[in-house]
Amino acid sequence: MYRTHTCGELRISDVGKEVTLSGWVQTVRDKGFMMWIDLRDRYGVTQLIFNEEVSSTDLLEQARSVGREFVIMVTGKVIERISKNDKIPTGDVEIEVSEFTVLNAAKLPPFTIDDDTDGGDDLRMKYRYLDLRRGPVQRNMMFRSNLAIETRKYLADQGFLEIETPFLIKSTPEGARDFVVPSRMNPGQFYALPQSPQTFKQILMVAGMDKYFQIVKCFRDEDLRADRQPEFTQIDCEMAFITQEQILNTFEGLTKYLFKTVSNIELPDFPRMQYDEAMRRFGSDKPDLRFGMEFAELNDVAQNKGFKVFDSVELVVGICAEGCAAYTRKQVDELTKWVQRPQIGAKGLVYVKYNEDGSFKSSVDKFFSAEDLKAWADKMGAKPGDLMLVLAGETDKTRKQLNELRLEMGRRLGLMKEGDFKPLWVIDFPLLEWDEETERFYAMHHPFTSPKKEDVDRMLNGDHETMKSLRADAYDLVINGVEIGGGSIRIHDRGLQEKNFQLLGFTEEEAEAQFGFLLGAFEYGAPPHGGIAFGFDRLCAVMNGQNSIRDFIAFPKNNMGRDMMIDAPSPVHGEQLEELNLELKEIKKEE
Amino acid sequence: MYRTHTCGELRISDVGKEVTLSGWVQTVRDKGFMMWIDLRDRYGVTQLIFNEEVSSTDLLEQARSVGREFVIMVTGKVIERISKNDKIPTGDVEIEVSEFTVLNAAKLPPFTIDDDTDGGDDLRMKYRYLDLRRGPVQRNMMFRSNLAIETRKYLADQGFLEIETPFLIKSTPEGARDFVVPSRMNPGQFYALPQSPQTFKQILMVAGMDKYFQIVKCFRDEDLRADRQPEFTQIDCEMAFITQEQILNTFEGLTKYLFKTVSNIELPDFPRMQYDEAMRRFGSDKPDLRFGMEFAELNDVAQNKGFKVFDSVELVVGICAEGCAAYTRKQVDELTKWVQRPQIGAKGLVYVKYNEDGSFKSSVDKFFSAEDLKAWADKMGAKPGDLMLVLAGETDKTRKQLNELRLEMGRRLGLMKEGDFKPLWVIDFPLLEWDEETERFYAMHHPFTSPKKEDVDRMLNGDHETMKSLRADAYDLVINGVEIGGGSIRIHDRGLQEKNFQLLGFTEEEAEAQFGFLLGAFEYGAPPHGGIAFGFDRLCAVMNGQNSIRDFIAFPKNNMGRDMMIDAPSPVHGEQLEELNLELKEIKKEE
Repeated sequence: MYRTHTCGELRISDVGKEVTLSGWVQTVRDKGFMMWIDLRDRYGVTQLIFNEEVSSTDLLEQARSVGREFVIMVTGKVIERISKNDKIPTGDVEIEVSEFTVLNAAKLPPFTIDDDTDGGDDLRMKYRYLDLRRGPVQRNMMFRSNLAIETRKYLADQGFLEIETPFLIKSTPEGARDFVVPSRMNPGQFYALPQSPQTFKQILMVAGMDKYFQIVKCFRDEDLRADRQPEFTQIDCEMAFITQEQILNTFEGLTKYLFKTVSNIELPDFPRMQYDEAMRRFGSDKPDLRFGMEFAELNDVAQNKGFKVFDSVELVVGICAEGCAAYTRKQVDELTKWVQRPQIGAKGLVYVKYNEDGSFKSSVDKFFSAEDLKAWADKMGAKPGDLMLVLAGETDKTRKQLNELRLEMGRRLGLMKEGDFKPLWVIDFPLLEWDEETERFYAMHHPFTSPKKEDVDRMLNGDHETMKSLRADAYDLVINGVEIGGGSIRIHDRGLQEKNFQLLGFTEEEAEAQFGFLLGAFEYGAPPHGGIAFGFDRLCAVMNGQNSIRDFIAFPKNNMGRDMMIDAPSPVHGEQLEELNLELKEIKKEE
Repeated sequence: MYRTHTCGELRISDVGKEVTLSGWVQTVRDKGFMMWIDLRDRYGVTQLIFNEEVSSTDLLEQARSVGREFVIMVTGKVIERISKNDKIPTGDVEIEVSEFTVLNAAKLPPFTIDDDTDGGDDLRMKYRYLDLRRGPVQRNMMFRSNLAIETRKYLADQGFLEIETPFLIKSTPEGARDFVVPSRMNPGQFYALPQSPQTFKQILMVAGMDKYFQIVKCFRDEDLRADRQPEFTQIDCEMAFITQEQILNTFEGLTKYLFKTVSNIELPDFPRMQYDEAMRRFGSDKPDLRFGMEFAELNDVAQNKGFKVFDSVELVVGICAEGCAAYTRKQVDELTKWVQRPQIGAKGLVYVKYNEDGSFKSSVDKFFSAEDLKAWADKMGAKPGDLMLVLAGETDKTRKQLNELRLEMGRRLGLMKEGDFKPLWVIDFPLLEWDEETERFYAMHHPFTSPKKEDVDRMLNGDHETMKSLRADAYDLVINGVEIGGGSIRIHDRGLQEKNFQLLGFTEEEAEAQFGFLLGAFEYGAPPHGGIAFGFDRLCAVMNGQNSIRDFIAFPKNNMGRDMMIDAPSPVHGEQLEELNLELKEIKKEE
């Protein structure tokens, strides 16, 4: 037996006991006649003491031979510490060691294994097994494990069944790019890894399973951004005989339960906001409600005053940065440059300082009187001491730009408070998105989303323009500006689904080849149904006030989709490709 | 709202309530003036009643328009049934329907949706969404969901963390064939889907996670036998600072807990049997202990009596079939043919009838006296009325053959009783298996399995022959002759792991290229560790006394690895291959 207790377990009440502990050497302090080792495991740290007067020379020599991260096993007596450490739960005691065994040696780690580390990202990923020993990463893994357990507990208590859907499925060109898996037994054919279990969970509703969930890996072969991973985890759910209202309530319940049980945070009821309203007030379908700084549309007070830049545009819209009237010219110039960066793409930024003395100073003083600017201030609810920032241009683009500026100002002014959580349901999304470039409709949520009941007729019988105005029973859960989950009521009628495929540019043959099984299933008694999927990695990050999902994933991949630790992907043996009836195309290039 | 109650919920105490139910039409009985519909959902069946005297003509007409598997919603009053049905929990009541809505029509299903179905395997798989509506399959899904929940509950209570390991990993030629996934971002390189999270869970132990588990999909590209699937689910576990004894106790605890909580069956303590003993007594490393019929080795009483077939062989071994002395010549001949089938491969079968009158009648009467045969009977514990069946030949082969015969006799004699569960730990497996054909060692468990402590020196310093006798700290959990789980204490020392790779025929370069990250991890403080993996699909089947795992998987694949419902795998677009830098080899054949 390697241990009678863990390194986080012993207390003053254990004094006098003979115990055996195993773990990693965290630190060694050697004072010559006395020596201490902090022994660490997942559960905590316990101090070991070696004393020339008590311990044998052999034992001391052994203890002196170990370095950081050695794995050791010790037996000894629990004694009360003279100088206690009230920062750790085991701080009242130490172990007077009588037996000492080195279980495994350790080379000097390439970075310090401590809450703050000197290891860069690449090094940490290559030696992820050392990185995972660090407190913050270990706590993230424990948080994640716990969050999954509580998620399952809640959903199971609500009568959901966890049903595993297959990983080797069928490639569909709609949506993001699939990872494909060549089939050896079916030469020339491929499986695809699921981007989500969408069609399977709908099939499970047709199958009468009524309430389904799964915490499940999904796969997307996309060019990776900072917070995307080629494999990620979803809490995937579907319910039959259900209304949108019931789904929102169920998953608002789940979210509140998780915050309460895992993070001990009581969330208030979640407000709901229509997509159109969110776009108008915040220029975003995932507004961060931790702060206000809402959009004020200024067309009627800012246009036709002789400022041509404003007069010709669709939208003049501004935000009010409270208490920022004292911004220097340099600060304002810098903000202007910030919105002009290609990532944001604004042409310029109009500012209006509403000075403490009630006067105005703006970049458009030539065109607008103090009275004019007071009208802006009234629209924005600006007070003396505030700074108004105004953008103008094409509606959608300008809103997006101002959304970025709003978030940036929120960051700069410290308005995104840690520990403050502002959840929100965004509802009534458009069903279809018209793309000017490719001249086609895309599904705003996905091709299985149902139009709102009142829009069904218009969808079946309307003209092309009508399609742009259709609303869907689709909803997103947003917390602090991050989309945590999204879902919809699904189409369960074959005709309506066919119409949707047709609007999305599928030929009848394509729809049948790719989704024939689902269309077929709709003919054998498909119940009304709907569902939602939560991004589990993202939920972990948001609940911990962090931006990156990477440190909530045990073995994440880098931006090139590479696992730095195992060095994957990698070339495979020629025979493997042979068996799969494949060859690499490079061979051609070499000719 | 589609329902106020489910179809399994209403009781006599609900009489008088106005309720709304939704579900599928199970049966329609129309007596003209009266009509009944059985309405079904996941939770049960509720009877609806339509009465010419009470219901409107419109309503009756609507009700008459529906057929089996239509999805309907009804509102009505709960009334007491005149003729009650005590076979279902809702059998005391029925619904007097006042509102009737068809939510979706249904074509006539291609097979009957009932506990017993007339649907063949292929049809059931193609219309899996209908098959899943059937009681037995639905109950299997609920059993599985429940088993997963209880597994997680038990392991979480024991301090295990569920940590997700990656699905896109690295291909290794050792073991079964990998499914590979071409990487678009790393042209010419491939991920592999994990055959198990083996190396990752070991890395998690090096990372200090201490106790890990995961219920996780694994993938093997094997030619499929009846009860194999290309994707299957494991309960995967690993523990650090652990002995074999502690692992066995932990997972015996899990197994008992699952049987108790999910199936309400108390299992006794699990016996343990060494691999060698299991092979000697049952000719199998997974003996079915629901019945005895143990092997008796007869070399010392059956050899050197002039029967040449026996004299030249390594092993003469038999079993005693209780009460079968009355087998006819035809029956015995049929048994002989059974063991001679190529799947079993025995040359012949010697039988000895120990007649009720104490006399013997055997196929070798020419060579053996009654006294000789009495000595056999003594060895076998045979009594008058029993039938002795004896095989002879090379030890390993003969044991395997007799194992098959023992199981067959067990089946024929009804000794494998339903509801009888006989768990067993098989321990002390050989470390390596010598394969005469390829002239190399294979890992009996896997390349990371530790030799027993007392065998380490012999492994590091012994000669080739010595390697054949090494024992491992490896163990299997067997229930009723089925391997439910298997695991081992792992090597945690780089040198020992390198030696094992070398014995398995890896060059140093190959070992480094494939498992360098693990060998490296062993140098940075790897703790002693070990673990186990349970076949989750198989556990579901065994706990339900069933042989096939297929009906415990929501969407299984057929023997060609094909999903009949979605028709996968399938060809992919040429551009997809282009992006992956791949081409199909058939193109070559066509040139």
